[in-house]
Formats: sequence, structure tokens, C-alpha cells
Amino acid sequence: MLKALENKILKEGIVLNEEVLKVGSFLNQQLDPSFIMEMGDEIARIYNDEKITKILTIETSGIPIAFAAGTKLNCPIVFAKKTASSNVSGNVYKSSVYSFTHNKTYEIIVPCEYINKNDRVLIIDDFLANGKALLGLIEIVKQADAHLVGCTCAIEKGFQKGGDSLREQGFRIESLAIIDEMSPAGITFRCN
Amino acid sequence: MLKALENKILKEGIVLNEEVLKVGSFLNQQLDPSFIMEMGDEIARIYNDEKITKILTIETSGIPIAFAAGTKLNCPIVFAKKTASSNVSGNVYKSSVYSFTHNKTYEIIVPCEYINKNDRVLIIDDFLANGKALLGLIEIVKQADAHLVGCTCAIEKGFQKGGDSLREQGFRIESLAIIDEMSPAGITFRCN
Repeated sequence: MLKALENKILKEGIVLNEEVLKVGSFLNQQLDPSFIMEMGDEIARIYNDEKITKILTIETSGIPIAFAAGTKLNCPIVFAKKTASSNVSGNVYKSSVYSFTHNKTYEIIVPCEYINKNDRVLIIDDFLANGKALLGLIEIVKQADAHLVGCTCAIEKGFQKGGDSLREQGFRIESLAIIDEMSPAGITFRCN
Repeated sequence: MLKALENKILKEGIVLNEEVLKVGSFLNQQLDPSFIMEMGDEIARIYNDEKITKILTIETSGIPIAFAAGTKLNCPIVFAKKTASSNVSGNVYKSSVYSFTHNKTYEIIVPCEYINKNDRVLIIDDFLANGKALLGLIEIVKQADAHLVGCTCAIEKGFQKGGDSLREQGFRIESLAIIDEMSPAGITFRCN
């Protein structure tokens, strides 16, 4: 756990209701670069011995954290796009993700040339709630026949069980902060 | 101009036709963090004396470059979102951008709390072609009544005239590489 992130959430996060935490001031719409680099440092510390060759994330809010970790782990970042762009051509890995936030299923794609079976992949995202986005990214790593080292999210909503379910399936899930309970009255973080 | 960027474009860029340059290997889908940090260094060098208080960019591909520049200029980055998300509430600045790539007009929004009249804003994006995205971002800076210091794009398609038109209107536009001509046979960069 990254104590500085818990403090930042307590200071700047806005709990809109028991499911939605707004962290637009430093993570989702405004970015605090020195703080996000601190998250990158922590991710690099966790996976330092894992010889990560590629970080996989998903647009949009996962990108800055993945980028910060990539500067520290010294490896390229690949981000899955949520819809096919006219500039994407050739063979792609593809999977589907259901978004509770937007109440729709979207396709995510990564061109095959950017991940291959020799890669040791770390998946990074901003939020982990029900785990659907991570499952979509894990599916892409499987399609690439690459080795999945683990997944790190900045903020895990522990009460939504996506993270715990993935841990039970044997995946290494390291979140920088895990919220076990939240309401406009307060936030309870999971202890180490 | 950043010679290293011109070299990277020559080495890894793929000219699909006379209008479309694919730089997915280091800028648009896979990110080379140390190279993007080099772009951030160059942007910080250009605007070093301008007391930038905020960098404004637009999702998705502008974010890593803006982030790299923000770590060097030591200021927050705000990114305009392309559609209203259910997590965005309250007052927003809003403008419209026509995308030739996707042949549609989309709305871009920035919550008012992230830019105000005391800000000295630097706009950053990945590509500058017809200038529509920059115009949308400039409109947001105007709505905030903030001071626009200038705009920097990584790659300007000089032959599409968006950058030159903005320069003629008095805006400071500093691109890291300007392509005056391109075809599958080769790329000609504008000289300093």
C-alpha cells in the first residue's frame, strides 16, 4: 500500500456515493505529475526483480500511471484502445469489457506487433472495481501467449470484490490503495 | 525542432499514404518512455521562462507527452475529455472539434475547477494537421479567461496548413517536428 495515495484520496477524493469516488484533481482529469511519478516508483519497487518487458494498460486514465512506471522499469507501455481507429490496421488482439460506469460493453484492441510470447507483462490501470477491465487485458496477454507477471491498480474498491476474485484465481494483484468501505461520511482502507 | 524525433519518425514511422503517418510504435499505441521524456525535456526548454501553471491536452495520445512536459515544468496537466462521463459533474468548459480522421464532430469538456483566469496555459497535443483540436482547446482557455502562452505538438503536418494558419493568427505554435511533405517514398522535414 502507498500511504501517500491513501492520504491524497482522503484529502482530495470526493465520495459521490457508496460506489463512486471522484479523484479528478490528481488522477482522472487533472494529473499531478510528481505524485504520479511517486506511484511509478512504488510500482517499480514492487516488480523490480520481475524483468518486466512490457506494461499493458487501457486508455485513458491508466496511461499516466503506466507511463510513470515505464520510466522507472525502463520498458515500453502499450495501451489498449477502446474502439477501432481508422489508423489501426493489420492483426490485432481483441477482447470485450463491460463498463458498469457507462453501462455498455466495448471492444478493446491491441495490435499483435506490440506484445509477443517472449514478453513478461505487467498490467496497470487506475481503478479496480469489478475487475472486468483487468479480465479484458488478461485475455489479451493470453492471446499473445505472453507471460503475465501481475496486475497493479492505483485504487481498488475492495468492497466490489473484483480484485479478491482475481486473487482467488491465482493472479498477482497489487493495488496501491484498497478501499474496503466508503461513503460521503468517510473512507476505510484495507490494512497491509 | 527535435532532431531525435525526426530520426525516430524516419526509423519507425509508417507513411500509409500522403495524409496518414502511423507512429504507433512509440507515440500512439506503444509508448517509449525515455524517448517521450526527451520530448518533455525539449518542451520544458522552450517554455522554461514562461512560468507555465497548467498544461492542457486532450485524450488520448496527447497525455503522455503532456505528462512528460509536466514532470519537467513542474505543473499539473489537465486533459479534455471527448465525451461527457458519468463521473463528470458540475460546471464545465465545452467546445466542439471536428475530426477528419474519424469524420465526426465531438464535444470536448474540461471541468471549470481545473483552469482559471490566473493560469498561464501551455497546450500540448501529439499531432497538428488542420488545427481543429488546437482550436477547440484554445476556445477552452478563452472560456476560462486564462492566459494562453502557446501550443506545442509533437508532429506537425506542415502541408495541412493548420499550424501556419494559427501562427498567422498570432498564436505561438512550436512543433517538435514539422513534415512538409510525405509519401511512402519519403518524408521531408521543414528546416529550422
